[in-house]
Parts: sequence; structure tokens; C-alpha cells
Amino acid sequence: MNEVLEERYDARFWQSRLEDLVEHYRPFSSSGRNAEYIPALGKIDSNQLGICVIGSDQTMIKAGNSDVSFTLQSISKVISFIAACLTKGISYVLDRVDVEPTGDAFNSIIRLEMHKPGKPFNPMINAGALTVSSILPGESALGKIESLHDVIEKMIGKRLEINEEVFRSEWQTAHRNRALAHYLKETGFLEADVEETLEVYLKQCSMEGSTEDIALIGMILANDGYHPFRREHVIPKDVARLTKALMLTCGMYNASGKFAAFVGIPAKSGVSGGIMCAVPASVKREQPFQHGCGIGIYGPAIDDYGNSMTGGMLLKHIAREWDLSIF
Amino acid sequence: MNEVLEERYDARFWQSRLEDLVEHYRPFSSSGRNAEYIPALGKIDSNQLGICVIGSDQTMIKAGNSDVSFTLQSISKVISFIAACLTKGISYVLDRVDVEPTGDAFNSIIRLEMHKPGKPFNPMINAGALTVSSILPGESALGKIESLHDVIEKMIGKRLEINEEVFRSEWQTAHRNRALAHYLKETGFLEADVEETLEVYLKQCSMEGSTEDIALIGMILANDGYHPFRREHVIPKDVARLTKALMLTCGMYNASGKFAAFVGIPAKSGVSGGIMCAVPASVKREQPFQHGCGIGIYGPAIDDYGNSMTGGMLLKHIAREWDLSIF
Amino acid sequence: MNEVLEERYDARFWQSRLEDLVEHYRPFSSSGRNAEYIPALGKIDSNQLGICVIGSDQTMIKAGNSDVSFTLQSISKVISFIAACLTKGISYVLDRVDVEPTGDAFNSIIRLEMHKPGKPFNPMINAGALTVSSILPGESALGKIESLHDVIEKMIGKRLEINEEVFRSEWQTAHRNRALAHYLKETGFLEADVEETLEVYLKQCSMEGSTEDIALIGMILANDGYHPFRREHVIPKDVARLTKALMLTCGMYNASGKFAAFVGIPAKSGVSGGIMCAVPASVKREQPFQHGCGIGIYGPAIDDYGNSMTGGMLLKHIAREWDLSIF
Amino acid sequence: MNEVLEERYDARFWQSRLEDLVEHYRPFSSSGRNAEYIPALGKIDSNQLGICVIGSDQTMIKAGNSDVSFTLQSISKVISFIAACLTKGISYVLDRVDVEPTGDAFNSIIRLEMHKPGKPFNPMINAGALTVSSILPGESALGKIESLHDVIEKMIGKRLEINEEVFRSEWQTAHRNRALAHYLKETGFLEADVEETLEVYLKQCSMEGSTEDIALIGMILANDGYHPFRREHVIPKDVARLTKALMLTCGMYNASGKFAAFVGIPAKSGVSGGIMCAVPASVKREQPFQHGCGIGIYGPAIDDYGNSMTGGMLLKHIAREWDLSIF
Repeated sequence: MNEVLEERYDARFWQSRLEDLVEHYRPFSSSGRNAEYIPALGKIDSNQLGICVIGSDQTMIKAGNSDVSFTLQSISKVISFIAACLTKGISYVLDRVDVEPTGDAFNSIIRLEMHKPGKPFNPMINAGALTVSSILPGESALGKIESLHDVIEKMIGKRLEINEEVFRSEWQTAHRNRALAHYLKETGFLEADVEETLEVYLKQCSMEGSTEDIALIGMILANDGYHPFRREHVIPKDVARLTKALMLTCGMYNASGKFAAFVGIPAKSGVSGGIMCAVPASVKREQPFQHGCGIGIYGPAIDDYGNSMTGGMLLKHIAREWDLSIF
Repeated sequence: MNEVLEERYDARFWQSRLEDLVEHYRPFSSSGRNAEYIPALGKIDSNQLGICVIGSDQTMIKAGNSDVSFTLQSISKVISFIAACLTKGISYVLDRVDVEPTGDAFNSIIRLEMHKPGKPFNPMINAGALTVSSILPGESALGKIESLHDVIEKMIGKRLEINEEVFRSEWQTAHRNRALAHYLKETGFLEADVEETLEVYLKQCSMEGSTEDIALIGMILANDGYHPFRREHVIPKDVARLTKALMLTCGMYNASGKFAAFVGIPAKSGVSGGIMCAVPASVKREQPFQHGCGIGIYGPAIDDYGNSMTGGMLLKHIAREWDLSIF
Repeated sequence: MNEVLEERYDARFWQSRLEDLVEHYRPFSSSGRNAEYIPALGKIDSNQLGICVIGSDQTMIKAGNSDVSFTLQSISKVISFIAACLTKGISYVLDRVDVEPTGDAFNSIIRLEMHKPGKPFNPMINAGALTVSSILPGESALGKIESLHDVIEKMIGKRLEINEEVFRSEWQTAHRNRALAHYLKETGFLEADVEETLEVYLKQCSMEGSTEDIALIGMILANDGYHPFRREHVIPKDVARLTKALMLTCGMYNASGKFAAFVGIPAKSGVSGGIMCAVPASVKREQPFQHGCGIGIYGPAIDDYGNSMTGGMLLKHIAREWDLSIF
Repeated sequence: MNEVLEERYDARFWQSRLEDLVEHYRPFSSSGRNAEYIPALGKIDSNQLGICVIGSDQTMIKAGNSDVSFTLQSISKVISFIAACLTKGISYVLDRVDVEPTGDAFNSIIRLEMHKPGKPFNPMINAGALTVSSILPGESALGKIESLHDVIEKMIGKRLEINEEVFRSEWQTAHRNRALAHYLKETGFLEADVEETLEVYLKQCSMEGSTEDIALIGMILANDGYHPFRREHVIPKDVARLTKALMLTCGMYNASGKFAAFVGIPAKSGVSGGIMCAVPASVKREQPFQHGCGIGIYGPAIDDYGNSMTGGMLLKHIAREWDLSIF
């Protein structure tokens, strides 16, 4: 457990409810399938589904395969974006990557050529995430990764291990990411070397966490960067808000619009099946979690957009039941 | 005035503050310029700037050129989308238009050819708005427009007049919209005739309202379709929420991402210089407008994206000062 | 017959050979199918295959369904291009349409938006052909069409009738062409009204000719515009050469490159199944047709690119057997 | 000199004419400029202009800076295509690269993503040329390059040296080519490793030849692969013809259509300023070179398309004066 969290009485009701929902949606895993372009992900049991919700009031509820470790994949894009903003400043970062959603696939290269001078549209697609990884502080891949560990430690009080097997698997098959990185090198947006950038990017993708870890990060973002348990600001408010806006408009690949429309929560998914959500406090909401919460979900069978199939269903269900939408 | 609104005591302070801000930002009009592709808009005094804020608590404050009538242009896309959902049902509408932001210009046609079968990406770009106008109930342009008047009347208690001069001006220069409509006719997404659809679409764009009119609509959306003065639901909650999500992800042309990131309010702009905002209640906000509000802005000088230059600046300022962001 | 042509003795041998080849390739019609987007074409017997070859030496040989009348469709683009060059001058025409092949489908609209200012890439794709039709002399559709009849009469000594049924069929389903025309109207490349241009374009597409008619035009082009029977220049040499270059690089839709590579003859096809070829004289060629020839082919079953399935096979065969390639 | 060529009497007249034309066009070098993306090319005297014409009858005429050595750059794409066809067979090669012109820039990546499965459109653009280099025989870069030397030696009787300085310069700045190669690796079209392929490709680009060398290759292609001096076939006829068709439709970057239209000769250019032409024999042509010829041109100042500015002008002039067009 990341922090000492007390399990409150009323959480038991919600935990039981979550358990029911997890078992209800788990069978739909068969409609999706594990990401195949990363060989190491193909081997994982696609029937898993787990969730962890951490409230701003220190309530934590978990259900299903909530303690499984999985690689963050694109969820790490949120962390590297925060780390870049913290170390280089928001304006430095936004000079190199825009914050516009695209409607294109996460690994699309078309827009870099179609729109001069080829500035990546946002940091949640691969082109933008590679650019962000390249501007992290540190003269080497190691140094840049350390800056990611720093920001993670600030938020969840520990480092996340890099799964070397997944990293090597991704490294060897990263042809599309190398194509994007070389393209960005030519247009001048990539500040570090291509290979150094790829090492940083693929290692951040290979960091392993649990639903609890990402729920905690989501909860801190929900609180505008304030860590309610530690009673300190770990991320500046403007960075936290900008990050949530990006998650809402660009966080769920090219289903982000549909996710905003039908779930309405700032969220970031990864092809390994994780989804990290930041649910701000709401005057409308009765209970639970009227003071906001973070949600971490894991379900490795993904849909055509790259989002967890059952994770998305579960999230849509509780967003409606608990009235979590920010709209 | 749309409704009998009492001007509260504390509103005087905020009114004065708004007047100062309007005069502060008005000179920046010279950095933008009136939309040129619609000849009738070119003649308007580009130095105007007005704002109206209507709180869920019936507070209304106005400043600057808040009473000028202007054509809704793309703001009408919100109204036609609501009207289509009310009359045909959400799922019928979303079978014909998606809800994904694109990053492309509002009048772009590329994506219709690149993505089979050419379903428009969202109802806030022209391709999607034309599709929505074509599915409105009614066997003629007149009937379809009547369905728009109905939903407007439901919300603001009156009809909005169509500016015939602007309509004729747009009708004669609508080459790009005709191109889009014919393309959509070929792919089968346009249900009505091209000319009938264009008449509906261009007439809805030519409807005239004031900042107060659009602020009231925004306020109703902020309240999930509930009209707090009349104490009745005029728009179903799910339609209102879907509409706000669309406004946030797609409402400010291809600056929607930047607007979400730096303002954080569901909003829809038009090239005539209007911006309609729906600000939900927030537990975080102290005052004013902690119970939510609608904001109407008018400033005809637009920026490169098609959004009001000074209107955007003013909105960004008060969003920060009053903590209006939904994130 | 267009002209008094003497059937030479040795032509009998080649005629017999052509008859054999026609019957050999005719059964492959079942692999293609009639153009479906023009309803009137769907009804035609797709098993037809005919050919007419007219040599510069006045030899004419025919085989199969060579006397069937069919609508020219895109073959008419060659005629309107020639007519525009004759009446407005090459440089006037090329200011409005480029001569670059695209690799895109004939009805593609993407490139008009991707490349500012949206100049059509060549007159053999619809965007370019519409532009060309719009600049023909004459203040009305009638006048413009008359200029096409003029150039046709100059070449083949008679007018080609317009098939009104096909024209009406195309007129009603011309959504994509209307989209293109309106787009070109907005960017300023279309000089005439959209509807006038469409009438000209669709009427030229609906002109009916036989394989003999188009073979004769092809033969004149093969002779650089010189009509060897009449012993007069009916098309200026520079226009004829430019036209042949365009046919070779852009004439067979987005299979033009493959056609240049494996057949090597300037040719223009239409979705009705016609192919018009201009085979220049060659020092390499033994016989027949060492002094050049025109070839007209008709086979209504088309392939995925829009070219006659059996017509293409037959042409490839005789191009190889008779060594007709210009390379 | 590649071969013992006798300078004929009448060649003196044409040589003098060429000298005049070279001096006439040389000053236009100032309208173009050396390729900048390859640093080593930037240093070269941009005022140079040279030409060599070798007739099938063993006539050779030269003018201007005809003996300067320059790197072949994209001219080498013709050689690698021929080498691949000779060693792997035409159908093997065309399974991996199409022969359609694109209208896009030589280094464009868009089409690989837009058209599934991403088969390169032709071997004259970088995506196609990289694919071709990857399928050359040999288990290493060295082996593959040796296969290029073999085919060159077959044609011109000698090896072309690799300019190591240019190679290193290109190797370090080849970001865009690396992007293309990695993209092609992901889609499966690149058969060799990315780095091995790039080494082959950039070394073939860095091979140095003179106008005489490329004129000789052009002359052999003009003769369908037959070497008239040696009286032997060095390239199969079908490969030679296919190559000439490709040169005509795709050889002059995205000005290929214009070049076909206004010059009408199969040609391939390189950004170093070379142009290689294959002029087939023609029954129309009086003199000189009625039996066909090869032309080599060198003028390092290039235009916006990447073709030699003065070289193109000179070629257009003599194509018209000597009636060299194949149309």
C-alpha cells in the first residue's frame, strides 16, 4: 500500500458493489484482446479485471485483480508530461508540443507532415510523448528516467520498477516509434538523440504499477496536485489542471471524445489495459466520493481504440451510478 | 430581457469588475478581424465587446456591448444538435455523426474521404452540423427550422429572428458548405436534400441573439437542462451533459484543446464573434457563481481559429479570477 | 464509317488475329463489373468486347463488338482539354490545372485541401476536368458544349450525340462531382457556375461514340494532330504532344503508372469501358502499324481502378505482340 | 572515357551548339540553389553546368563542366531498381513496390499510412528506393552494394567510387530516411535491417560519376538494354523498358508530369544536380541522334522540386530543338 489508508465502514458497501460489477463485466474480456504489437503483453491472462478507488478522504476500495502489477504504457505519458512541466516550465513544453486532440490513431505520422512545421498535436499521442521524453532534464536516458522516478516518488512515495522483459520486447519492435522519433528529429522537435529518447520513452512505458498506484496519482490530480494525506502540494495547481484537461480531450486515444461524452472523467489509458482517472470533487454528487477520488483500473483485453474493453465498461457504469462526470 | 431577473446587490461589484475588464481587453480587437468569408459580417464594428453572465441563482450581470444582436453562426450547432437529440433520440443522431474532436479546420473535407465510410467526426464541425440539420424533423426546410425555434423557445421563452441579409450573403458564398453537403449526400449521411439542408443550416447560422440569450442557454446547460427560474427540466439531463462534453472537446474550432487547457469551460464559438459558455456548479468555487452560470460573450474581431479575439481573452481572465474551470 | 477507309489485303491477317484475341479475352469480363455509380451503365451487357485499330496508312481493322455505341465518360476529358487549349491557349489552361499525376482515385478531393491553393493536379482527374469544362468558351453550357462538338468534328468529321438517359442518370447522382465543383468554386479555379459546369461536364461524359470514333481521334493524336487522310493539321502539334504526355502519365486513373510500365501507350479510359490509344510511329516496329495508329477499345466490365478489364488485357497483349510501346 | 568513342565530323557542329546553350543557361543557376539538407553538397560551385550526349551510333558530344564528378543521389535509384530486377526478378520486386506516380514530395511518408498495407508507390521516391535497396542480394550492406557495382560495371565497364565524405554527411542527417525505413520495417516491406538498408541506400546515393557515365547508362536504356558498342544485351529488354516507363512517370520528383509534358524524355534526376536521360530512336527525328542517345547533365543548383535548374532548362531546349520527345 502506498500510504496508510484506513478502510472506512461505508466503503464496505461500495466494495461489495464494485466486486459485483467486476464479475459482471469480466466475461466481456473475450470481446477484446491483448495488445499484440508488444509481444510480452500477448502472454498475459486477458480475463483479468481489477479496480482501485482512492477518495480524497482517504477511503480506498478495491475489487477484482486490483493488485496485479502491469506496465503503465501510455499512462506514463501523463507522468512524463508532468515531469517536463515541473522541470522545464509549462511554456517551454508547450512550445514543443500542442494540446489539441487529433482524432487520429496514437501512432499516426500523417499530421506531422501535413501541418508545417510538424509540431506534435498533443503529448498523449506517441509523437508528442516522444518529444516530451526528449526534453526531460538529464544528459542521458538514465538521467531523464530519474526525473520521472522523482515525480512519481513525489506523488506516490515510491519508485516504480521497470519491467526489463517488456522493455526489451518493445525496444526490438519499436519500428513505428523509431519512425516517429526520426521524423521529429528532422523537424527539430526532438531535443535528445533518437535512441536516447526511445530508451526513455520505452522504459517509462515499461514501468510497472498497480491499480492502487495509478489511483493515487489520479486522486492527487483530482485535488489539483494537492496530496490530502500528506497535506502538501506535490504538483503545482496549473500543471495539474492542464494535465486533467489533456486527459479529458486526448487521454483515451481516438475514443477520447466518446469517453468525454459518455463517461466524462479525465482519464488516461494504456495498451496494457490500465486506465487512470482523476475525479474532481463535485457539489452535485451525493456519495460516494463527493470530495473527489482517483480511480485505477486494469483489464488487459483492449478494444479497437487501444482502451481496456472491460475497464471502459466498468468505468462507464460507475461514472453513471456515482455521478462522476465533470459535466 | 428573457426572464424577470432581479439584479442583486453583490452583482454590482462584479458588474463593475466586468466593465473594467471589457475596457481593458477591447483594444485588442485590432489584433483580430471580422470574418471575411461572410460579406455581411465584414461591415460590423470590430471594436465591440460585450458580456452577460447569468447565474443559476438568477443573478445577471452585463458589461460592454452586451445588448447588440449578432448572428449565432456556429453557436447554432449546439441548438441543432440538441433539437436532433430531442426529436430523434441520441442514438439515432450518433449513428450519423461521431463525437470525436479532429484537430482540423471547421470546414475541412479531408477526413470524410480518409476515413471510410465518411461519418462526420462531430456535430461542431461543418460536416457534422450539416448532417445534424438534415435529420431534423420536418419534410421541408421550414419544418426543420421550426423544430429549432421550438427548442430555443423551450429554453429562452422566445424565438430568435433570422437575419435575412446575412442568410442571403451566406447562401451565395456557401461553396465550401455545398461541397461538404454534396459529399455527405454521396456517402449517405445527409438525409435531406442538399439545398434543403443548406437552407436550414444557413438559416440557423443567421439567427440573431444577444449575449443574454446565449448566456441563458448556457446557464440551462450548466444546470443539466434544468431551468432554475421556471423550475422545470427543459432539456433531458443526458442530452445536456453530452452537449457540454461536445462543447468542451470540439466547441472552439481547432483551438478546442487549448481552450480546454487554459479556460476549462464547455463553450461554443461562432465566427460572428459570439461565445456561449456553460459553467457547472463547483464545490471549489467561493464566489461568484458557485451554483454555476451561463456566459454569453460578443466580440466580432476573430482570431486565426475563428474564435472571438477579445472574447477569448476576457473569458480566460474571468475563468481564472473566478475559478470557473471544470478541472 | 468516319472516313472512306480502304481495307488493305494484309489487314485481313491482323483482323483474324484480333478476332481470336477478342474471343480469348472476352470471358474474363466476369472478373470485372459494370460501373455501378452511374445507374444507366449498370444495365449494359458486360460481356461485350470490341476493338478498332486505324493506321496512319488508312488501314482499319476491327473485331468483336466494335460498332457498339457507348458513352465516352472520362475519355471526353481528353477532348475538353484539347478544346480548352485550342480556344484559350495552353498557358491559360495550365494556370488553372497542373499536369502532375497523383496516385489518387479519380474522384478524390483530399489533394485540393492539402495543397494550397488547391489547383487541380491534372485534367484527367475529375477535379481538373471540371475546371477545364468551366473555362471552355461560351457563356452557357450550350455554348461550351458546342466548342466540344467543334473540336470533335474537326477530328472525326461528325458530331457525337449526347445520350440523354445517361446524362440524366449521371446528373441525379453526381454528388461527388458537385462536391468537387463547389470546392473548386470556393478556391476560385472554377470559372463558370457550378451547375453550368456540371451540365457541360456530364454532357461531355454522355457523348456516344464507337471504337472507330475514338480510334480515329487516337490516330490523329499519334500523328501529332495531323490528319493523314485529310492531309491537314487539325490539332496543333504542341497541344497533341501535351495531350499524349498527359494520357500516358494520368490517363488510366490510378493505374496509369502500371499501364505505362506494362503497356507503354498514351491512353485514356472511361468507366463505361472505353479506352482510346494513340500509338506514335516507331522505327523499332516491324509491322503492323509502323507508321503509328489509333486504337479504340470497348469492354464495359471494369476493374477496381475503373479501367476496362478485358480491354486492358487485350491491349496489353497486342502492345507486346505488335511492339507498340513508346519506351 | 568509358569506351573508345570516335568523335565524328558532324558532332563538331552539335558540340559548338551545345557549348552556346550551356553558356546561355549557366547564369540561371542563380535562380536555384544547391541542395542544403546534405551539407557536403552545399559547398559545391553552383554555377557549374555540363552535358554529355552519347549516340547509339557512338557519337559523343560534350559541353561545359561535363567532366566533373558528382554523386548520383537519386539517379542511383534507377540502378538499384535494375539490379533488383536482374537478381530477384521483376515480379518479386513489384510485389514490394508499385509503379504509380504520386504527386507527393520524394521524401513524403503520408501515403504509407493512408494506403493500407503501406506498399511504396514507386521505386523513384525514397520509400520505394529504400525498399528496393533492402531486397538487393547479399547478406550485408557490402554484399548488396557489390550487386550495384556489378550492374554498373556491366553497363559502363567500370565501378563508380563512393564519396565517403558525402556518405558520412548524409548518414548523419538521414533522419527522414530513417523515419521512412523504420516505418517500412514495421509494415514489413523492408527486408533487411534498417541500418543495413540505409548504408546501402546512402552509399549508392554517394557513388560518383560524370555526365559521360550517366549518358552511357541512358544510351543503353534507350536501346532497350542493348549495348551498341559492345554489341551485346547487358540488361534484359523488359527491365529496360519498365525502367524507362518509371523514369518518365516518376523520375523527376513531383515535377515528373510537367517534365513528361514539356520535355517528353524518360529521365531521372538527383538533388546533386544530375539528370540521366534515355532517348529512344525515333522515326520522326531527322538529326542528330535519330538512332537514340543517352544524355547526362550536371548543374548543382536545383529548383524547388529538387531538379537541376539549368539542367532542366538546357534539356527542355534541346528536346525541342532536336525533337527528342517520345510523344
